[in-house]
Amino acid sequence: MKNIARLLSRDLTEMERHSRTRLVNSLSGFKGVNLCGTISKDGITNLSIINSVVHIGANPALMGFIMRPVTVRRDTYNNILETGHYTLNHLNKEIFKKAHQTSARYPIEVSEFEAAELIEIYSDLIKAPYVQESHIRIGLTFVEKIPIPVNGTTLMIGKVEEIFYPEDTLAADGYLDIEKAGSITSSSLDAYHTTQKLARLSYAKADRKIEVISF
Amino acid sequence: MKNIARLLSRDLTEMERHSRTRLVNSLSGFKGVNLCGTISKDGITNLSIINSVVHIGANPALMGFIMRPVTVRRDTYNNILETGHYTLNHLNKEIFKKAHQTSARYPIEVSEFEAAELIEIYSDLIKAPYVQESHIRIGLTFVEKIPIPVNGTTLMIGKVEEIFYPEDTLAADGYLDIEKAGSITSSSLDAYHTTQKLARLSYAKADRKIEVISF
Repeated sequence: MKNIARLLSRDLTEMERHSRTRLVNSLSGFKGVNLCGTISKDGITNLSIINSVVHIGANPALMGFIMRPVTVRRDTYNNILETGHYTLNHLNKEIFKKAHQTSARYPIEVSEFEAAELIEIYSDLIKAPYVQESHIRIGLTFVEKIPIPVNGTTLMIGKVEEIFYPEDTLAADGYLDIEKAGSITSSSLDAYHTTQKLARLSYAKADRKIEVISF
Repeated sequence: MKNIARLLSRDLTEMERHSRTRLVNSLSGFKGVNLCGTISKDGITNLSIINSVVHIGANPALMGFIMRPVTVRRDTYNNILETGHYTLNHLNKEIFKKAHQTSARYPIEVSEFEAAELIEIYSDLIKAPYVQESHIRIGLTFVEKIPIPVNGTTLMIGKVEEIFYPEDTLAADGYLDIEKAGSITSSSLDAYHTTQKLARLSYAKADRKIEVISF
């Protein structure tokens, strides 16, 4: 590790726009990376890659993600509002290049499933397509959208209605081994990483030392 | 990979509470994991582990995180509102056990820096402590808090004022190599993982195939 460098707010302001976007998108750390599946009222399916999914609550099971300003056509946003449903599908190393391809701008009549050569499948519960090649797939109903005044983005919140997962990845204590399921992580806007578990740690208590509960 | 299993919303409702929390916290995928440093108006420093940091925008550079309902004493929340400042410090494998220890419930007069044996350092700009052992450190000013009505959580938004990083981790195009900096990722509530880069991919265009731009 070399010397520690420092950048100030004004250095960011002066950076070339794309460089600044890459840098600031690196700061939150590693991210979960999901394909969001939706369908329009005309039956055209859509996939978009989302790296801002965040846990909102466990009971009820709620997840959120940040939608960029709706100043241009946003198929995912429109479809969620129209149908009330969407899916989140974890990326894995077999599909990350195809998944990245879905971030290209396609005409409204083109499905990203076709463009990226991914297979759409459906459950009886959710009016939105799942990605067959994904190993952890979550179906959600739309709950609410919360405007973020400072920059015109929106926090989209959904309730988990169903979860598909490889049956050997769910531990007895509820821990879902997403590494074993092959899920990957991303950094900045264009980097993808596999993971290697260090450990699961015991519940922290003030009067006790942390222990490794499993590797 | 074994058979795909399915859980429904009512299965989640019927699960033991802690198991449900572990499972639902697994669903968003891998997470960035940060120590949030703050100081009270009485000068007592605080550290809390946060795995819900999310990118809000690049210009201005904004980051958010989800604060659990403020129905009990939340030192981080109170300190941010009192001072207007906080720091986010990426975890690495040298400090993840100490960092996990900060999630224990300590009396208000105890600093988690002391309890977890981490070293606090300061810049001239931010009235909040940084974690010296962290390699990527971000200083923020508080911008706004946005209530999430559905479950009483709050989205806390801050503006990036300064960034400290190992100077050999910032690429010419703005990509910050957080893996090279030793940052780690987390899953569920208690698992920590190192990463291994698969690739950086080219900007997606509808008429072009995705290419690897670096490994």
